[in-house]
Order: sequence, then C-alpha cells, then structure tokens
Amino acid sequence: MQIDPSPLAEPFPQMPDISGVTVRTARAGYRDWERADLTLVELAEGTSVAGVFTQSACPSSEVEIGRAQLSRGTARALIVNAGNSNAFTGYRGREAVEQIMDQVAEALKCKRDEVFVSSTGVIGVPLPKDKARAGVAAVISAPSVSWEEAANTIATTDTFAKGATASAMVGDTRIEVSAIVKGSGMIAPDMATMLGYLFTDAAVEPAFLQSVLSAANARSFSCITVDSDTSTSDTVLAFATGKAGNAPLSSFDDPGADAFAAAINDVCLQLAKLVVKDGEGAQKFIEVAVTGAQSDESARRIGLSIANSPLVKTAIAGEDANWGRVVMAVGKAGEPADRDRLSIGFGGIWAARDGQPVPDYDEAPVARHLSGKEVTIEVDLGIGSGRAKVWTCDLTHGYISINADYRS
Amino acid sequence: MQIDPSPLAEPFPQMPDISGVTVRTARAGYRDWERADLTLVELAEGTSVAGVFTQSACPSSEVEIGRAQLSRGTARALIVNAGNSNAFTGYRGREAVEQIMDQVAEALKCKRDEVFVSSTGVIGVPLPKDKARAGVAAVISAPSVSWEEAANTIATTDTFAKGATASAMVGDTRIEVSAIVKGSGMIAPDMATMLGYLFTDAAVEPAFLQSVLSAANARSFSCITVDSDTSTSDTVLAFATGKAGNAPLSSFDDPGADAFAAAINDVCLQLAKLVVKDGEGAQKFIEVAVTGAQSDESARRIGLSIANSPLVKTAIAGEDANWGRVVMAVGKAGEPADRDRLSIGFGGIWAARDGQPVPDYDEAPVARHLSGKEVTIEVDLGIGSGRAKVWTCDLTHGYISINADYRS
Repeated sequence: MQIDPSPLAEPFPQMPDISGVTVRTARAGYRDWERADLTLVELAEGTSVAGVFTQSACPSSEVEIGRAQLSRGTARALIVNAGNSNAFTGYRGREAVEQIMDQVAEALKCKRDEVFVSSTGVIGVPLPKDKARAGVAAVISAPSVSWEEAANTIATTDTFAKGATASAMVGDTRIEVSAIVKGSGMIAPDMATMLGYLFTDAAVEPAFLQSVLSAANARSFSCITVDSDTSTSDTVLAFATGKAGNAPLSSFDDPGADAFAAAINDVCLQLAKLVVKDGEGAQKFIEVAVTGAQSDESARRIGLSIANSPLVKTAIAGEDANWGRVVMAVGKAGEPADRDRLSIGFGGIWAARDGQPVPDYDEAPVARHLSGKEVTIEVDLGIGSGRAKVWTCDLTHGYISINADYRS
Repeated sequence: MQIDPSPLAEPFPQMPDISGVTVRTARAGYRDWERADLTLVELAEGTSVAGVFTQSACPSSEVEIGRAQLSRGTARALIVNAGNSNAFTGYRGREAVEQIMDQVAEALKCKRDEVFVSSTGVIGVPLPKDKARAGVAAVISAPSVSWEEAANTIATTDTFAKGATASAMVGDTRIEVSAIVKGSGMIAPDMATMLGYLFTDAAVEPAFLQSVLSAANARSFSCITVDSDTSTSDTVLAFATGKAGNAPLSSFDDPGADAFAAAINDVCLQLAKLVVKDGEGAQKFIEVAVTGAQSDESARRIGLSIANSPLVKTAIAGEDANWGRVVMAVGKAGEPADRDRLSIGFGGIWAARDGQPVPDYDEAPVARHLSGKEVTIEVDLGIGSGRAKVWTCDLTHGYISINADYRS
C-alpha cells in the first residue's frame, strides 16, 4: 500500500556531524524493500550511553538485552534492523541479537556488551541470521551516510524522515546534539516513540546522562500518544562521545549542565512532536494543555485521557468543538476533578467555564481555529496548580485504512 | 445522518409484562425527532431498587441524585429523557431533575426520592424545564406501551431496539425478568452501557438486589467496551416489584436465590452483548477469552487492554490474524505476564504458543473464522488460573464517519 506523506510532515533539518560518530547503512534484505534497512553507528571509545525502554511486559530480546547493557554505561556501536522487530521470537530471536553483537564487536574490536541492537517491523518472525550476518558484514565496510539517510533507513511505516538538533555552551565549549527518530503508530506512553537515538559530542558521565534523558523523556516521549498502543520494542538511547572536550558533566552542579539538559530536552520534544505529526492517518496536530490539576502527574494523566479518547480525536477530525467529549474524557481519567470548577476551551477561547457552557460563547473563531492543522485544547481543572502538556493527532479514516490493511 | 442498522443487530425478543410495572411514553420534543422521547415506568408500591452508575468524576446531576436515592431502597417511578443528557449543566440541570421528580411524585402520590430520572443525549445543554413539564404531564396520562416501544424511546444513536428476558423458579414461584438497554458508543468499563433497566416481579430485599446486580454488572457491563470512552451518565437500575409473591429473597441462603441471581446475570450478559453488537461502526462481534492469568481481575484487565486496542480492533476489521498486535496489547496492560509462556489463538486455533509462533501454523482455517461476524481471540498467560471474558467490536470506517460528523 502506497501511503502519502503526512500533511503535517516537516522538512528534515540541517544537522551537524557529531565528532566521534560515524553512520553507515546497508541492505540486509529483511523485507522486499528496494532500499537500505540496516544501520550501523560507530561510536568513539569512551562514549557514554543512557536509555529508556518500553514498559511492555512482553518486550523484545533487543529491549531485554539493551536494558542489561546499560549498566556498563559505555557504548561503541549501535545496529538498527528495519523490517523485522524480532519480537516474540523466543530463544531464536535472542540468538540473532547475540550473533550481531559478536560480529560487530569482533570487527570493531570492542566488547560485545558495548554493541546495542534495535529491531523494528513485523512481530513474531525471528530475525534471519544469514541475512543479518551478510548485512552486518556489508555495513561495516559501507561508506558513511547523512543523518537523513540514516533516518530513512531506520524507518518502517514512517511517511517522512525525522531529525532534530540543538547546541549548548558547556563552559567555553560549544556542544552539539543531533538526533533521529522513527515511529508513526503504536505510539503511547509510557515510552512513546518506537526508536529514537540522540548523539552528542559532549563529555557526560553515564549516570548523569541517564538522569537527563529520563527527565527529558518524561516531558516529551511520555507525553505523546497516537493510538494508546505501546510497542514491544520502544527504545530511546542517548550517546555522548566526549569529543567536544568539555570537562565531563556529572551533576547539575557542573557549569553548563543546565544548558546541556535544556538541549537534550529540546531535541526530545522536537522528536516527540515529529512522531505525532507522522501519526497514522493524522490530519491535525493536537496540543492538550491541562492546568489547575491536583499535581503535574495528575494533569499529565488527564491530558492523556483526552488525547487517547477516540471520541475527542474524531471530533477534532470533524472540526467539531465538542467540549462535551472533553468533559467525558476528563471524567474517565480516574483523577481528582470537580465538575463545577471545570473549564474547557479551544484555541484559547473558553467554551465552558466552571462546569457550565459560556453564556455568550461565539463558536465562529473556534471553528476557524479547528479548521487549521494545529489545534489546541485547554482544560483547567480549577482545583490546584498542576499542569502538563500532551500531544496527539486526530483519528481519521486514514488510520483505519492503514491498520485494517497493513500486516505489521 | 441516516445510519443503517448494525449488521450485528438482533430481533427484539418476546418479553413478558412484569406485574407491578407499567410503561408509558410521550413526546417532550427535546430534539426535533418525530418520535416519543420521554419514558415513564410506574412501579407498584413496595418496589425494591438497586443500581450501578458511571465512575466518571464528572457525572450528570441525574447520576449524583440517583446514587443518593438508592440508600432508600425503594422506587415508584422511572423517567428517562432521550435527546439531552443534561450533563455538565450546573445548578440549572439539577433544578430540571428536581422539577421532574416533584411533578411525578405529586401525580403518583409517592415520595420524591422514589422517582428516578435518567437523561441521555447532548452534553452541556440544560434540560429545558418547560418541555420536561409538558412532557411529564403528557406521559402520565399516556396509554401503556410495549417493551420494544420503550426500548426505542430511550434510544439515541442506537440502530436497533435492545431487550432481554429470563425467568427462574424461586421456591414454587416462577419469577420473570424483562429488561431494556440503550447504548452504542462511549461504552467502556467500569460502567459500560449507557442506560439499562431491569424489571422483575420477584420479591427481593434492596440490599440483596444490590449485591446481585453489582456482581452481575462486574461480569457483563464491566466486561464490554466499544471505544474505551465512558459516559458521564451511564446507569443500570434494577427494580423488583414483589408481585410474583415469593418469599422475599434477602441472601444466597434463601431458596431460589441462586436461580434468581442466575436470571439477573443472564439478562445483564445478554444486554451487554447487544450493546457491543450496536457498537458504532461495528461489523464484527469479538469475544476475548483470557485464561492462565494471575487472577480473574488481572485476566479482565488484560482482556480489556486487548479489546480497547485500536490496532487489534482494526486488524480484526481487516480479517488479519495479527497476533503480534495481541502480544503488544498484553504487554501494555500493566499486568503480570511472561512473554515466553504466552499463547495466542483465533477461533480456537493457536497461532503462537509459549512465546513463539506455532511452527506448522495453518492460517487458512483462522482466515475462515475471521471472515465471519463473530470472532474469538484466545489468550493464555500460562502463569496462573485467572480467567475472564471480555466483549468488543471491530474498529471500522463506520466509527470514524459516525463520530467525526455527529454532534453529541
């Protein structure tokens, strides 16, 4: 099935090379695609790594192994297989991952535990070892490629390549972050994007990198949803080569640590929004801004209840300022709420305040807002100071067409 | 928008009159429908009542008031308004309900707290008091109508009238249960159907009626879902007139109590399945049978995670035996699971066992099963003896068409 690019697609940004990072691609032939499907990222010695993974109780071998590898704190290579997720494939799936780790470690002369592997695509088919072996052999000697080429190679059902970049001053040193992500459906917290990779030349201790990434994830990938479904393979990894030469960051007390964290936050938020903009069938990008909740976490949960509601998402698809469905979604969230203090708006205009429709409510400017590609829903609970923003897309015929026909 | 009857529609059953119950309908004109929209059910003196309501934190005034009324344990009348849910209408909505209660209580010479009121339809528009007053005046002197007429009158977006009946021997006395329900979307636990009413001529103490209804609800209305969305008005009420003349039931130690409870269970399950069969856009009825879970409740939650997954529901719509999506839905349920013990089947045929695809899996009979109107998904967790069944429908273009255009 040919799928048009999302109407919300963004052009791929200009992204700097990261010192200590080399990206290569090859064709392993996991599927009958006429394109590269295997990505190798070589990382300089001493590269720190941090990661967050799906909370699925049935994760892939890649996720299980990757989670264990993180304790080492260093990485030398990343392999991404596209077209086969290798999930739910038992010991044969695990063997394929270990074969790849061994093969790459031997070629790069590093430890096997420093080779991270991700796979994305069909569930339930063991990654074919022969194709993986030939693909890895080819990619190791392949020429280096651009970030955009890499973003295209890790993609599966994505309709456009997704990347983001940011920089920061750490002391007197300018550090860069370049990152790519893939994912367009099966996107939901608590680990939202399918596969995302951040690369920076900053010198960062692994434990601090982990705390920065975890915090950034909580306000980005954990705040987006396409269809409430969660992949068995969701993974975000951050790699810091240290080639920029700054004094290594180990805590927020270090000069420049805040700027570094801000750059990571920025990149994660950009990537997360790009994933939503490639949501299957998405025609509109929706921001749900929740204020006045009992706590920030309560606000996030209420926002996700709204963002996951099929009735809210179809209303936005229909450009209908149906605040009654938003009330419904607040009510079912299982979070503290008081019907008679609840206010709901669209595009900055309140439709209902304190539990009742606004008497002189004028739907015309709201209708204009809803006819655009970017829609905001404002919800004020009126009971506290908790706040959160959550992002999603509308639910359209396109989603049904893609998912009732595509064999994942 | 004209909507065709669901392809899963069932004919309205032959349902006996219930002694002590009289049903009347009238047209209040809440919407511009050319049909009756107000239902009055008169109940004999001494009628016991029990109820379960939406768990929404933003319920309608009808739900708030009804919940409080239950403590009395007796009922003399039920009023159902169709076309306006009166939800999210503040004090004006509450005043409208109280006006109806007063008017009916005066006409029937009963206590105001014995008049139960439900409303269903658009959110956010206060129930118009003048229309309600004239409608109630008309319905009190209206002729009695059939169960099917009543089922049609309480309906809104339903595409067919829904009723169920059962009988039981309580001692030497045959008791009857007749019940109607409305609901076709915004259907999800923990209170699934929008409005359901059970009527029996059995003599039952209110507290026991409540425990029987709550237990039946837990295995029926709380085990169905159409779109994971929960109404602000969901209500199920059971009324027992006592006119059958049996010795009043007050506990499961009483003769016939088990048979009575079985009849209530049976009716609740029939009604719940009918609601799913009228799910918005439904083309297929799906039963998810979960076994081997850590507990029955864990099995129910896993079942609902599968039944609420847009990716599973679109796969069934596409007649695709996509067990990978079922794995995903099990994984995201947040319940104990072991990937390597998980088995998944369709129509009684295992596609994956113990965490791996079945080697000689023949998809042909599964494809035949999925081409039918009633589909089963079997999931065995392999870690305990907990089990549950959950019912839902597929997710189709019809759902999008209905909800992106219909102003609820």
